[in-house]
Amino acid sequence: MSELRHDPVQKRWVIIALGRSKRPKDFADIEVTSRKGTLASCPFCTGNEDKTPPEIFALRPDNSKPNTPGWKMRIIPNKFPALRVEGNLNRRGLGIYDLMDGIGAHEVIIETPEHCAHLGEMDIMDVFDIVKAYRDRIADLHQDKRLRYVQIFKNYGDIAGASLAHPHSQLIATPITPRTVATELDSAKEHYREKERCLFCDIINQELALHKRIVFTTEKFIALCPFASRFPFEIWLLPRYHFHDYSKTCDEDLMAFGEALKNILHRLRVALNDPPYNFIIHTSPNTSYRPGRPFYWETLPYDWHWHLEIIPRLTKVAGFEWGSGFYINPTPPETAAEFLRMVDS
Amino acid sequence: MSELRHDPVQKRWVIIALGRSKRPKDFADIEVTSRKGTLASCPFCTGNEDKTPPEIFALRPDNSKPNTPGWKMRIIPNKFPALRVEGNLNRRGLGIYDLMDGIGAHEVIIETPEHCAHLGEMDIMDVFDIVKAYRDRIADLHQDKRLRYVQIFKNYGDIAGASLAHPHSQLIATPITPRTVATELDSAKEHYREKERCLFCDIINQELALHKRIVFTTEKFIALCPFASRFPFEIWLLPRYHFHDYSKTCDEDLMAFGEALKNILHRLRVALNDPPYNFIIHTSPNTSYRPGRPFYWETLPYDWHWHLEIIPRLTKVAGFEWGSGFYINPTPPETAAEFLRMVDS
Repeated sequence: MSELRHDPVQKRWVIIALGRSKRPKDFADIEVTSRKGTLASCPFCTGNEDKTPPEIFALRPDNSKPNTPGWKMRIIPNKFPALRVEGNLNRRGLGIYDLMDGIGAHEVIIETPEHCAHLGEMDIMDVFDIVKAYRDRIADLHQDKRLRYVQIFKNYGDIAGASLAHPHSQLIATPITPRTVATELDSAKEHYREKERCLFCDIINQELALHKRIVFTTEKFIALCPFASRFPFEIWLLPRYHFHDYSKTCDEDLMAFGEALKNILHRLRVALNDPPYNFIIHTSPNTSYRPGRPFYWETLPYDWHWHLEIIPRLTKVAGFEWGSGFYINPTPPETAAEFLRMVDS
Repeated sequence: MSELRHDPVQKRWVIIALGRSKRPKDFADIEVTSRKGTLASCPFCTGNEDKTPPEIFALRPDNSKPNTPGWKMRIIPNKFPALRVEGNLNRRGLGIYDLMDGIGAHEVIIETPEHCAHLGEMDIMDVFDIVKAYRDRIADLHQDKRLRYVQIFKNYGDIAGASLAHPHSQLIATPITPRTVATELDSAKEHYREKERCLFCDIINQELALHKRIVFTTEKFIALCPFASRFPFEIWLLPRYHFHDYSKTCDEDLMAFGEALKNILHRLRVALNDPPYNFIIHTSPNTSYRPGRPFYWETLPYDWHWHLEIIPRLTKVAGFEWGSGFYINPTPPETAAEFLRMVDS
């Protein structure tokens, strides 16, 4: 069982994974992964369904059995989950400290049976299936009132933290709203309270007026390099229409999102020679839990605007960044956007 | 000239280094550094003083000229500084955004002329010289009222962001107090306001009572793995006596700090086979700037407690962490402290 521990200095929760506790020797040989792994040894490839925990969901022909070949996409629990759904939160204090048990969910979305596929180059209908699966898993987990936030993310490439090369994304549901998201929710709420306008809509409007950091726009989406990018080629992908909850997005809008996501990942791959990256969806917290915070949740549809953030992993994060939360970015977002614009989509 | 840009969503300042703007091709071949570089090619080695900007300070025999061999320690401006002292802050708005010019200081402390030395294995008097130099540089930069915070940090090893193998640490002075430090200052202030006790003194007392996460104690210092460690083998080194300002620490206490620092770095090297790491000193902001915030500064001697944080870089930071500010740590701090205790010091 993992523990969630609260740092009284940084006011930050940390997951201490007690179950798979690493001892010094475990760090001796760090596993190197490759995008050229063989099918036989890859637990996410067709034929190796027995090497993963039983599937939660799969796209497969009607007559095909669960956990057998023939699937187009599979969702499974993480084999080494950071958090588990079973049990109680058991919130408690320990002297000056606070902690609770590691309740939550940790799932893996195996995006395709094809070991060497790339989300930016897949058929658009396959990308559509993936972004729909994200939505449906969030909506399903939002029924559990203990879970306050569901985070969808993707680690692509060894440097970005992918421990397997086979195309996959992940989901972690936590019993608290993570701090980074909480900070954004607070900023957006403060902006709305003052101006009765959405902060993200304001950013989109200013970027459309300046046209210096936009990579592309479609009818429904905009891809831009944010003004205060922490990392070279950092990208935000936002719906141009105001909406707060990814899990309530309709098929038509998700199709437009899938197209925009494929477009930006393709540009990134071409412009930067297939770089490692992380992407993260920032969506609405789970509003099925309400006691004590009704006002907070009630304004969400007005002040919050879901979006996706992409962080290419081109530079190293060093002591200055860890110690300060301050970032040095050697590539202005204007330069990055210009390069990404020049790629044929 | 760099720019400091403010992210209106995360309320975070970012340094955009316009001067050395990186284009995609610059990321093509990432320079690999080694701890076995040759003396001739290393700008920090004796005989190559002309390969660095002129020294700000050096420990050298009385009759030896600046920027010539014979030194024991040198402090130089960073050749590619993220921030510069010359110029004005030029604070301004840009529509919804805020920015200012990249004013500050970025210096390198070359700890020794010996290319292959290790801070944990050096002569204690040499370590003493280094930690005294940290103090004196912070005190000197605190005379500049534009600079709000001086951060001392060390990147050790390629993975931890060291671009040169020669033993060195760095200093970056910024015109704002970095967010990570500001969060800690706020937590400590809130704790003091409520209890009239220092948060860090309370943590030290609880850890001394529990004795599960302490690596060692000396008369004046304590090394421990914090309760909510984000990373395996994360370590805090704190003075056991209450004091807020590293730059006002007396020689005697710095000698005790140097001994404790050498001790913990030695243990880390032995226990984890010379791992890459970052360390960061969290000290008092510059209080020479006072308008508008006198109360804030006036309580610092009571509520703030300087300390050093060490982050071994054993695991990869991936999408979940970047997106959430939430960390998954596979090694409980109790396990880490136990291993570090077993190393002969």
